[in-house]
Amino acid sequence: MTLEQLVQAIKRPRQVVILVKAGAAVDTIAGQLAALMEPGDIIIDGGNSQWTDTIRREKEYAVRGINFVGSGVSGGEEGARFGPSLMPGGSTAAWASLKPIWEAIAAKVDETTGQPLMGAVPGKPVTGGVPCTAYIGPDGAGHYVKMVHNGIEYGDMQLISESYWLMKLLLGLKPPEMSAVFSEWNQGDLNSYLIEITADILQQKDPANPRKYLVDVILDTAGQKGTGKWTSVNALDMGVPAPSIAQAVFARFMSAEKEKRVEANRQLKGPKFTYRGSKKGLIEAIRDALYCSKICSYAQGFNLMQKAQEEYHWKLNFGEIAMIWRGGCIIRAGFLQKIKEAFDRNPNLSNLLLDPFFKAKILKAQPNWRKVVSLAAQAGVPCPQFMSALSYYDSYRSASLPANLIQGQRDFFGAHTFERTDQPRGNFYHVDWPEAKRPMVMTAGAGK
Amino acid sequence: MTLEQLVQAIKRPRQVVILVKAGAAVDTIAGQLAALMEPGDIIIDGGNSQWTDTIRREKEYAVRGINFVGSGVSGGEEGARFGPSLMPGGSTAAWASLKPIWEAIAAKVDETTGQPLMGAVPGKPVTGGVPCTAYIGPDGAGHYVKMVHNGIEYGDMQLISESYWLMKLLLGLKPPEMSAVFSEWNQGDLNSYLIEITADILQQKDPANPRKYLVDVILDTAGQKGTGKWTSVNALDMGVPAPSIAQAVFARFMSAEKEKRVEANRQLKGPKFTYRGSKKGLIEAIRDALYCSKICSYAQGFNLMQKAQEEYHWKLNFGEIAMIWRGGCIIRAGFLQKIKEAFDRNPNLSNLLLDPFFKAKILKAQPNWRKVVSLAAQAGVPCPQFMSALSYYDSYRSASLPANLIQGQRDFFGAHTFERTDQPRGNFYHVDWPEAKRPMVMTAGAGK
Repeated sequence: MTLEQLVQAIKRPRQVVILVKAGAAVDTIAGQLAALMEPGDIIIDGGNSQWTDTIRREKEYAVRGINFVGSGVSGGEEGARFGPSLMPGGSTAAWASLKPIWEAIAAKVDETTGQPLMGAVPGKPVTGGVPCTAYIGPDGAGHYVKMVHNGIEYGDMQLISESYWLMKLLLGLKPPEMSAVFSEWNQGDLNSYLIEITADILQQKDPANPRKYLVDVILDTAGQKGTGKWTSVNALDMGVPAPSIAQAVFARFMSAEKEKRVEANRQLKGPKFTYRGSKKGLIEAIRDALYCSKICSYAQGFNLMQKAQEEYHWKLNFGEIAMIWRGGCIIRAGFLQKIKEAFDRNPNLSNLLLDPFFKAKILKAQPNWRKVVSLAAQAGVPCPQFMSALSYYDSYRSASLPANLIQGQRDFFGAHTFERTDQPRGNFYHVDWPEAKRPMVMTAGAGK
Repeated sequence: MTLEQLVQAIKRPRQVVILVKAGAAVDTIAGQLAALMEPGDIIIDGGNSQWTDTIRREKEYAVRGINFVGSGVSGGEEGARFGPSLMPGGSTAAWASLKPIWEAIAAKVDETTGQPLMGAVPGKPVTGGVPCTAYIGPDGAGHYVKMVHNGIEYGDMQLISESYWLMKLLLGLKPPEMSAVFSEWNQGDLNSYLIEITADILQQKDPANPRKYLVDVILDTAGQKGTGKWTSVNALDMGVPAPSIAQAVFARFMSAEKEKRVEANRQLKGPKFTYRGSKKGLIEAIRDALYCSKICSYAQGFNLMQKAQEEYHWKLNFGEIAMIWRGGCIIRAGFLQKIKEAFDRNPNLSNLLLDPFFKAKILKAQPNWRKVVSLAAQAGVPCPQFMSALSYYDSYRSASLPANLIQGQRDFFGAHTFERTDQPRGNFYHVDWPEAKRPMVMTAGAGK
């Protein structure tokens, strides 16, 4: 069947989903389709396209009357079997047409508990439940939200891997023991797909050698496909502090430098350290560190979406986004129900850390979080993400930070000016440092 | 005088330096100049242009026989008085013509000690000494190296500010006491322009109210002009782990969110903590933490340049780059002499941490570095850069990292495949997780 015959065979308004590698291939296929389509038809890009490309494409095709919908799709192999999480952007007209289908194929969660509903038969829609999809916003909004989802996913995976590493290096736990720990965590606050599969992976024997555990023979060089990087680059471009998500990406880069690390290991010594405290206590502390760090990582992700909606004039519904992620996708978790509730309480919540539920959780868990970071530093166990999240928390809750000194330095060497704590914002001052008496002048306009 | 008259008045080959805001203005001015120039003439862009723009411009003008030289210039106000550090890229022919002038106007350092030489009269060239300039490489190499210099500068400033903050919050030191500490540090390993001006800034009284210290009335919201961000984005694009430089940029973003931090401070509590150890011991520990973190930050910067030279087929001389930075520029420091010596010992040094000098320094200082990070975590004092650098060090010296678990997860949810520790690199495996017996298959081609 030719593409022409295919398009002719579809009832109008046509809805065609393309799932190809992000980039030029999307333009090629969408262009071929559009040439055969008629006004009102819909092209849906279900790949991991960059949201800026989707903004461009939506505009290009709108001129010709074709609806271009960039829809984030998350779910991996299991999502393909039991329904994915779907994050559609584009025009509201296109969404009206897609909605019944999108809701039918999306993953479903229980209305009250937010827990995913699994059908008895893979591929068959689940009956009942709340579908994990909703209209995200115009043009690139769906792909943007999907990208942030992936950035958060990088963060979650790095946090789990650091927890595993601390248990292995400080407590000497074996994979099946750690599997039991993750299984137990999966019954509590950390209940999530990634914790569940971690427990499963850790009990998995090596198919090539059943006397070994698979995790012990997997090479420690993590791949990445770019979406975590895009999230981090976008954070840098928009000026949003998202250090934990970026740190998770850098940790993957570091993992890829296997040969260099093996060589460095021969030369660079760490401390001698033996943990002598309670095993149970440390496992609990690691769980708390993971939970607190996870809150910080999600706080950064939601801040990114808040900033992006300002930039692109979207109206995102953050509670709904959290809801969509409760089922189908890789980061699905009980945790997201709490985020949804947080935004239900306050749709304009400026940071997840300020929600009463999460605030209380961190207040209670932070001594353990600090204990783990402190131990890791002394023991020489790398915990970049735990540390990055803790310094995010401590920076964010600091009314004052030492950036006053940085502004002093910038004014000293480059006359970049500074504001004063005792004067209204927007007044900029400069000290004439090379002058003997160092007079201070008020400068016109913004800081340099 | 019109631009035409100006160009006509210059002896051939003409050399015109433009110093305008990076971006479109450079294209406009360079275009106007080139239209009036003749083959063999040289346009020098001394602004902070993005190296990719410089690569494009160099090619564009080369076609017309005009040499376009992107030259990084660092030095701030003092560089303008006593000579800057100059990092020229472009053709070797252009460099041959510029060299005498560039060497004459550049800052000079003492040949043996590497210390900057200051002339008695600002604006008058210093006699003797080694000029802080050398040919960096083709097209965008000069601007690239200048960008990394700025990224490193962000790192240095953040590290100094964290040191200041720890002394203030844990020891309650007042600005003049901290000024004395930095003055003392400036006599040792940390001898540098930024430490020197920090000591000066901290003793500076507020010109508006001599009963106060200036640093205490400067608002803690740090500005930034983009080069640190570019460095971080480039690290993400090239896949180079440079978390500490990125962290310094994120710390500036966080500082800018003053109002949100003030509000968060009312709601988010930290630990109760009183430091009861030795004041002298903690000051020494902070100095060691600063020094170790600085090595890591520079290691990341030099790794970026190493990766960029692969990408762009430059041949950078890293010892010479360190040498150029010894005088004139903001990061000038005795430390750079040590980096020069490291690359003299081994021009192919893959990471500064592996140089015998730096290796020995870190080995000795790391207990103090760990102590500071550990204390900061317990005390709730934000030290993002110290922590990021420590986890960089601990990750880099780890023959194994927990990315094996991440690869297991990626294979589980997305069939992304993994390599095995007991098989040659480049062989990729996948477990069929949904199958009851979970068979493992070897997959063709690269990891996904």
